[in-house]
Amino acid sequence: LQLPWSSERFTPLVALELVSDTKEEAITWLLQRIRDKQRNGGAELLVEQLRPGLGVQEKQNPNLFLIGASLQRLLSGAEDLGLFKEFNDGSMRGFTCTNKQNFKDFQGDGDGFLSVAECQYIIKHELDTLRAKDESHVPGHTQAKLYPGKSIIRRLLSKGIMVQMFPLHQKEELKRLTFSWYKKVKLSLQPLGKIQCNYEGQALYFGFLEYFTFALIPMALIGVPYYLFDWDDYDKYVIFAVFNLIWCTVILELWKRFSATLAYRWGTLSRKKAFEEPRPGFHGVLGFNPVTGREEPLYPNAKRQLRVYCVSLPFVLLCLYGSLYVMMIYFQMEGWALSLHDEDPTFWTGVLLFIPSIIYAVVIEVLNLIYRYAAEFLTEWENHRLESSYQNHLILKVLVFNFFNCFASLFYIAFVMQDMVLLRQSLATLLITSQILNQFMEAFLPYWLQRRRNKKMMRRVTKMRTQEDKELPIEEQVRLEADMSTYLGTFDDYLELFLLFGYVSLFSCVYPLAAVLVLLNNITEVYSDAFKMCRVFKRPFSDPASNIGVWQLAFEAMSVIAVVTNCALIGMSPQVKAYFPESDMQLILWTVAIEHGLLAVKFILTFLIPDVPKPIQIQLAKLEFESLEALKKKVNTWGMFSVI
Amino acid sequence: LQLPWSSERFTPLVALELVSDTKEEAITWLLQRIRDKQRNGGAELLVEQLRPGLGVQEKQNPNLFLIGASLQRLLSGAEDLGLFKEFNDGSMRGFTCTNKQNFKDFQGDGDGFLSVAECQYIIKHELDTLRAKDESHVPGHTQAKLYPGKSIIRRLLSKGIMVQMFPLHQKEELKRLTFSWYKKVKLSLQPLGKIQCNYEGQALYFGFLEYFTFALIPMALIGVPYYLFDWDDYDKYVIFAVFNLIWCTVILELWKRFSATLAYRWGTLSRKKAFEEPRPGFHGVLGFNPVTGREEPLYPNAKRQLRVYCVSLPFVLLCLYGSLYVMMIYFQMEGWALSLHDEDPTFWTGVLLFIPSIIYAVVIEVLNLIYRYAAEFLTEWENHRLESSYQNHLILKVLVFNFFNCFASLFYIAFVMQDMVLLRQSLATLLITSQILNQFMEAFLPYWLQRRRNKKMMRRVTKMRTQEDKELPIEEQVRLEADMSTYLGTFDDYLELFLLFGYVSLFSCVYPLAAVLVLLNNITEVYSDAFKMCRVFKRPFSDPASNIGVWQLAFEAMSVIAVVTNCALIGMSPQVKAYFPESDMQLILWTVAIEHGLLAVKFILTFLIPDVPKPIQIQLAKLEFESLEALKKKVNTWGMFSVI
Repeated sequence: LQLPWSSERFTPLVALELVSDTKEEAITWLLQRIRDKQRNGGAELLVEQLRPGLGVQEKQNPNLFLIGASLQRLLSGAEDLGLFKEFNDGSMRGFTCTNKQNFKDFQGDGDGFLSVAECQYIIKHELDTLRAKDESHVPGHTQAKLYPGKSIIRRLLSKGIMVQMFPLHQKEELKRLTFSWYKKVKLSLQPLGKIQCNYEGQALYFGFLEYFTFALIPMALIGVPYYLFDWDDYDKYVIFAVFNLIWCTVILELWKRFSATLAYRWGTLSRKKAFEEPRPGFHGVLGFNPVTGREEPLYPNAKRQLRVYCVSLPFVLLCLYGSLYVMMIYFQMEGWALSLHDEDPTFWTGVLLFIPSIIYAVVIEVLNLIYRYAAEFLTEWENHRLESSYQNHLILKVLVFNFFNCFASLFYIAFVMQDMVLLRQSLATLLITSQILNQFMEAFLPYWLQRRRNKKMMRRVTKMRTQEDKELPIEEQVRLEADMSTYLGTFDDYLELFLLFGYVSLFSCVYPLAAVLVLLNNITEVYSDAFKMCRVFKRPFSDPASNIGVWQLAFEAMSVIAVVTNCALIGMSPQVKAYFPESDMQLILWTVAIEHGLLAVKFILTFLIPDVPKPIQIQLAKLEFESLEALKKKVNTWGMFSVI
Repeated sequence: LQLPWSSERFTPLVALELVSDTKEEAITWLLQRIRDKQRNGGAELLVEQLRPGLGVQEKQNPNLFLIGASLQRLLSGAEDLGLFKEFNDGSMRGFTCTNKQNFKDFQGDGDGFLSVAECQYIIKHELDTLRAKDESHVPGHTQAKLYPGKSIIRRLLSKGIMVQMFPLHQKEELKRLTFSWYKKVKLSLQPLGKIQCNYEGQALYFGFLEYFTFALIPMALIGVPYYLFDWDDYDKYVIFAVFNLIWCTVILELWKRFSATLAYRWGTLSRKKAFEEPRPGFHGVLGFNPVTGREEPLYPNAKRQLRVYCVSLPFVLLCLYGSLYVMMIYFQMEGWALSLHDEDPTFWTGVLLFIPSIIYAVVIEVLNLIYRYAAEFLTEWENHRLESSYQNHLILKVLVFNFFNCFASLFYIAFVMQDMVLLRQSLATLLITSQILNQFMEAFLPYWLQRRRNKKMMRRVTKMRTQEDKELPIEEQVRLEADMSTYLGTFDDYLELFLLFGYVSLFSCVYPLAAVLVLLNNITEVYSDAFKMCRVFKRPFSDPASNIGVWQLAFEAMSVIAVVTNCALIGMSPQVKAYFPESDMQLILWTVAIEHGLLAVKFILTFLIPDVPKPIQIQLAKLEFESLEALKKKVNTWGMFSVI
């Protein structure tokens, strides 16, 4: 690990910031626990305080610590985590220290074997699982009570003693990455391998973004001539809608396979959920995990289910009802404004026409924000054992509400008002506005803020030291990164893609240009996301994922809704209605019959296409077979021992 | 293993019959291959010729052989098979010889540890996997060519040299089983544990039969008052239909959990499909299995898929079309007969009314029979590697056709003719007739035939030997069993339950007594099936299954179809129509909306209810965790070796 700003004693990988008024004894205790041997319940990591920066005249927080680890410690941490690495025979296997020489990229003492993201992930895991022993509270902070088995880091964070913990950017590697990722002028595939090394958990999101972008191309290619030539010919829209349905199903199925391939290559496919450590915020009575036999907090599942179904579920339903109510008020206001304008059209009534939309948009944004906090609070309170389970419940809550807020008005326009022109207008407005707003809020605004901070820091540094070297010294670099915004995970990025996917799959047969707009948005999204990851945010901890999890389900649910919506839209079109001049009933029955047929075909397709490509299936089966054979051997050994 | 008819040298478990004109050298060769050591490619089993029976004056086949195995061979066979047995700590683990003492029921040298069904299954497996080495043909039979790696037994069977291979009934155990199963007068649960010991693979069917019977009780309880009091009140049928929908979903979900519990307790849940040996009929070029690294025939998957989709699928569709065509002819004939009768009603036109139904029933039976043979031929030709895959494809083919034949006419009456009275009549007639026919064909007829054969044999024996002992000597017993009919697997039994489930779930809101009839049928079915297994048929080889496989899917598909059908029936009822007097369109839209809502709830329920109960999930996760840990240890050992 050759980092340009290596300190004398070790390579700092992670920074940890405590509040400036932390008691001296608390710091001593924490550092001692971090440095302590594993057999004493410590993390056995290296840690030192960051030296004060150059701007000493300003108020600086002295309690910034750099954390690293010896190579040996990192390797044993990788084994504890069950990290999968490429073996000599090309298969992916769980890393073990004794067998390290048989892994493909292991050379010499193993320097460079683990990527920096992996090292940082290991350190985070070790810090997170640093648990209180018999201390009753944090030394010097009697209000910060500790209970045996609870995560210390989590407690420090929740009590406000720890400000943050974050992995450090690596200047050199980052430069190389940014160049191949978004600084090249010509369009090319993203360097997913390199992204994976740097942003392990986020790489799957970038993989999905790229896949989704490519998947949109056929839709966009078909959409353009529709837009240019046959704006109102519904006959052809029927073909477009059918194509849309097939497209939805096929791209989601193929994504599963592609995702499995990526996850296998990155060693995250075989990681087992059951062996995940409980998430740091998880609390419960200390007991023995029935699977691993290890001591950890336990919390009865029935209690959690009770909280989910008796509190969270009614809350979500109530919020949906509230959102529906707001939407109805909006439509009433709009109707009222329209009637006022129709009665006596003046300039002021013309302005009045826009007022309801603006109020509605603002209210929706506010509701989304409040709801998001409430959802986070509730999901935290549900006390999920695994981080993945926590994420899934949070995603589901936010997803349903966002879906409702985004599409309820479109559904209302399409099926209650049956106004296709208004639907097309609303769709276009929504898509374009949300696209512009998103890009601005997501990348440019934070970048601009960060740039200002950067410049200030550079000015100060160059003022202090009269040297040509444009590189910041490590003290300043760490402090700069500490001030950067925190990347809050791929949640919002997936949510955005989900909503875009909704616009394309649900209503693109009314507005075929939607696919083109989304495609353009995705291309800029690749660049802005890449830029955001590299330059705007603190480096995030990697968060290895074997698939996109609950998002896959969400996209599939969306594609089922798309079948129903498209069939209904086709059934309502005047051209299709013209085929059944005598009876609406016949039309509806046919529409329903075709819809059921399409849904059946969709499910059969989902069933027929295997989720994991054959070669990877074989690799996984092989590993499983070997592990069963190994278990036999182990039991044999036990048997021999019991005989002896 | 203390069998009453133990021969001097070993306990015969399986009998093998060759045709009477088999060449002496072929017999010598076969016996030598069966007796040969495993390292020489033999099966290492014990085998001896059955001594001639008492009726020597009659023509008897001398080529009947009894096969057994030493206890040690059976135990090592159990290990090869990966048999799961209960461990000392109550969990289920793959049996290994070196660790045998740690298994729960292993006492002394292991006598009685394996059930007879397991021993017979092991012997069958060893015989099935007895493969040709460098022999070019069966000695003495030049027409029976052999190819390296192909199953000898299968070749002998297909060339007509081997007549059959069957496991032997055990008089004592059978007596105990029959008593607790069906000879008790009072109604009680089936002795599933004992059934499992005797008929391993069939036990899950009996478990399902029992579960299904119990599940029908609430439906029957609600159905009776409907039948007695409110025959034509559709309002209440709506409630019945809704209850029906919930019932379908819930019982299938709960069955999955119950089935997992049974399969875990019987040690079949964790058996992995990938480690299944290829089925004896599977042919291909000898190569190395990429998963296990063992030599076995390989056949390209693409070729199989081609056969499935380009030959079998079109064939099935063609047959369905044919069946539809026959049905339409039947309805035309019936209409024609009815019009003749209406014009000029005489006695002969009254008789004529029944002619179409009779012709239709006969044609359907003939079509079913022909189709069944065709399906078996096609599935064999598809050359599936695993027995389970073969079974699934066969089941799917036969299922679709049978579903179509049984229900197409009912659907036609319900939705095209919209004649609810006729629907109710047809349903009742179909149910009662099929029930009576089934019981007769399945149990009483074979029993009566078998009884005749039994008596004849007894008479002969008592004529020869003037002794009071009513027990047959082993020579006669084996010959008697050899003449018994062969049990053809649970296929037809499941198919019957599937169709009965269809009658209940699809149309019981029109004819609520259906559940009562099916319940009664199931109760008699338990007895007739038990009787059939114990007295009428040859003992079947056990066929361990972790679940009811493709049948679960079939039942679930049926329950989805049931939602659609029930909603449509409710929507068509005059009482519901009365709510929408002004517009049929509103009615249909509401029906469709409610149907979609119900389907969504159904899928969410399926998703929310875990398939495997929590305690068993934990046990499985534990085993997996241990096997992963063991793999680490094994890799460690390799590492150490590579260092040395």
